[in-house]
Amino acid sequence: MPYFSGVITILMHEFSESFLKGYYADKHVLITGGLGFLGSNIANRLVTLGASVVILDSMHPSYGGNEHNIDPINKDNIQVVIGDVRDKALLESLIISTDVIYHFAAQVSYIDSANMPFEDLEVNLVGTLNILELCKHINPSAKILFASSRLVIGVSSNQIINEEHPTHPLSIYGAHKLAAEKYFSIYNHNYGIPTTVLRITNPYGPRQQIKHSKYSIVGWFIRLAMEGKELTIFGDGGQRRNYIYVEDIVDAFIRCGATPRTNGQLYFVGSKENIEFREMTKLVIETVGNGTLRHVPWPSNYEHVETGDVNIDTSKLRKEIGWDPQCSLKEGIIRTVEYYSRHWRYYVNK
Amino acid sequence: MPYFSGVITILMHEFSESFLKGYYADKHVLITGGLGFLGSNIANRLVTLGASVVILDSMHPSYGGNEHNIDPINKDNIQVVIGDVRDKALLESLIISTDVIYHFAAQVSYIDSANMPFEDLEVNLVGTLNILELCKHINPSAKILFASSRLVIGVSSNQIINEEHPTHPLSIYGAHKLAAEKYFSIYNHNYGIPTTVLRITNPYGPRQQIKHSKYSIVGWFIRLAMEGKELTIFGDGGQRRNYIYVEDIVDAFIRCGATPRTNGQLYFVGSKENIEFREMTKLVIETVGNGTLRHVPWPSNYEHVETGDVNIDTSKLRKEIGWDPQCSLKEGIIRTVEYYSRHWRYYVNK
Repeated sequence: MPYFSGVITILMHEFSESFLKGYYADKHVLITGGLGFLGSNIANRLVTLGASVVILDSMHPSYGGNEHNIDPINKDNIQVVIGDVRDKALLESLIISTDVIYHFAAQVSYIDSANMPFEDLEVNLVGTLNILELCKHINPSAKILFASSRLVIGVSSNQIINEEHPTHPLSIYGAHKLAAEKYFSIYNHNYGIPTTVLRITNPYGPRQQIKHSKYSIVGWFIRLAMEGKELTIFGDGGQRRNYIYVEDIVDAFIRCGATPRTNGQLYFVGSKENIEFREMTKLVIETVGNGTLRHVPWPSNYEHVETGDVNIDTSKLRKEIGWDPQCSLKEGIIRTVEYYSRHWRYYVNK
Repeated sequence: MPYFSGVITILMHEFSESFLKGYYADKHVLITGGLGFLGSNIANRLVTLGASVVILDSMHPSYGGNEHNIDPINKDNIQVVIGDVRDKALLESLIISTDVIYHFAAQVSYIDSANMPFEDLEVNLVGTLNILELCKHINPSAKILFASSRLVIGVSSNQIINEEHPTHPLSIYGAHKLAAEKYFSIYNHNYGIPTTVLRITNPYGPRQQIKHSKYSIVGWFIRLAMEGKELTIFGDGGQRRNYIYVEDIVDAFIRCGATPRTNGQLYFVGSKENIEFREMTKLVIETVGNGTLRHVPWPSNYEHVETGDVNIDTSKLRKEIGWDPQCSLKEGIIRTVEYYSRHWRYYVNK
């Protein structure tokens, strides 16, 4: 398809490093949840692009914030504010002078959302609504990018999943992510606020919290393997998942933040590979060179949120901004293991 | 289709008056928002069926609660509690002994939801989550029925709208109704709580608030016509709407509450007729014998929530419980005008 390839080439050129540096150099960027996994990886990238970055993070002890996530950044080049997206007055002071907002502050465990649905509601919906209402009233031209989740979909019935797929979330977390997606669409449609939603599949990579198993199974399995422990697979592990390396996610967000073409849009962000869960597990054990594998039956509290095979179609994002995920799962696991080997003491207690 | 007709006959028989009396006679029923439009009409019907009814209503001054809505009920046969669905302790005391819950307490104006999104969130999401969490923990066998809205759909692109239609709400009200629908589905799927969601099109009829124009355009136009005023149509008024008379809605809820077949399900509730807005307006003016009609351009704050033609397909509900709406728009307007003529002083200030 020469025409299609041509388009891709032009778009890739459009988001060249020099273009992005030119775009972000004079931009004031706010990253909520900026000490967490996505937020800190974006922050590291934005600082290299010359942006003036402010991080807001609650450092909630059971969430993903970690001060070491921004160790590579010279502290003269970044401002870190410890605070909560539920604190509207604080948000107001940050939003008024911002050009681009990456909104990642969230309760991110779908498992916890079952036991603390009100906290999930407060952080993930009230927090999001705080940002949109403030933008509407004091800074309606600020571009806002939001991280949603493939968990808005629910059971996928083995179909290819794109942005048109029905949404039947199986968790309160998924229901609130879906409602938040609608907020962004409504505030774009009704008030012209430039919003972009990226629905992420299964993200993994450096700087993800690995204190417990609830945030990322890849990160958690890497930790277990590095500790020489057993990696437990529920059932036969044949269900396919779409694991996307964080640098590819960062690239999608950075590009989407730099063009009005993505305003009012929602995109799936996922890898080109849909890989069996057991295959991912084997790759982790092989890469680490430690850990063992064990199959057990599905526990009852997981069964009702199991979503079946996930086959994600990311062509919308690839076509519209020339995004092209570069990192294979094998390569991503190698880089992630390497990262945690070097920084183990900052991510695992004791 | 003789087979299909046969099914309908059996189902109609199943929900005969004597069956419903037998079913509800020993039931403890809680109606949140029970002094409002839907709630009070359901309450009036349930008391005639012999149910033991408790009403919870906040009597929020700008919402739809009206003590006169339950004037036909002998006060020995009903308990009215003035309180808020945001008050979890109060809810707990009511839910623990309840067999069936009709959850209607809500902020119901999509227009107001734009100016008070946090209040909409608190009442429509936190209130709903309060009920579901309490049922999960203290009364998981209570059947819960919820009134959702066609406004979860958003722009309809002139297609036939059924339960599978994509949902792209244009208002915070619609986004929250959608999230609440997901709550009911999740609590049914994950915890086995028997929930049923009815998505209502454009409800009208006796006991609806007509203090202002934000709750129901049919009710508001009836009031204006009865006052001899001008009825304003935005644009040409050619957009089709599905106006459903409250007694037909009540019948749908009463049937759905009396069978486990509707557990975990969501249904559209609408009339067989999809009628042009201007046609409805003319029927109101004709029936009342007063009022005049005026066309004006769409005001800018309405345009972005205008949803286009609405053509609702209610076959799912009709097939599954043999529901069959009986009241034409003409007949419904006649009955509504008659009601407000008799009870005018309770619905219009001064």
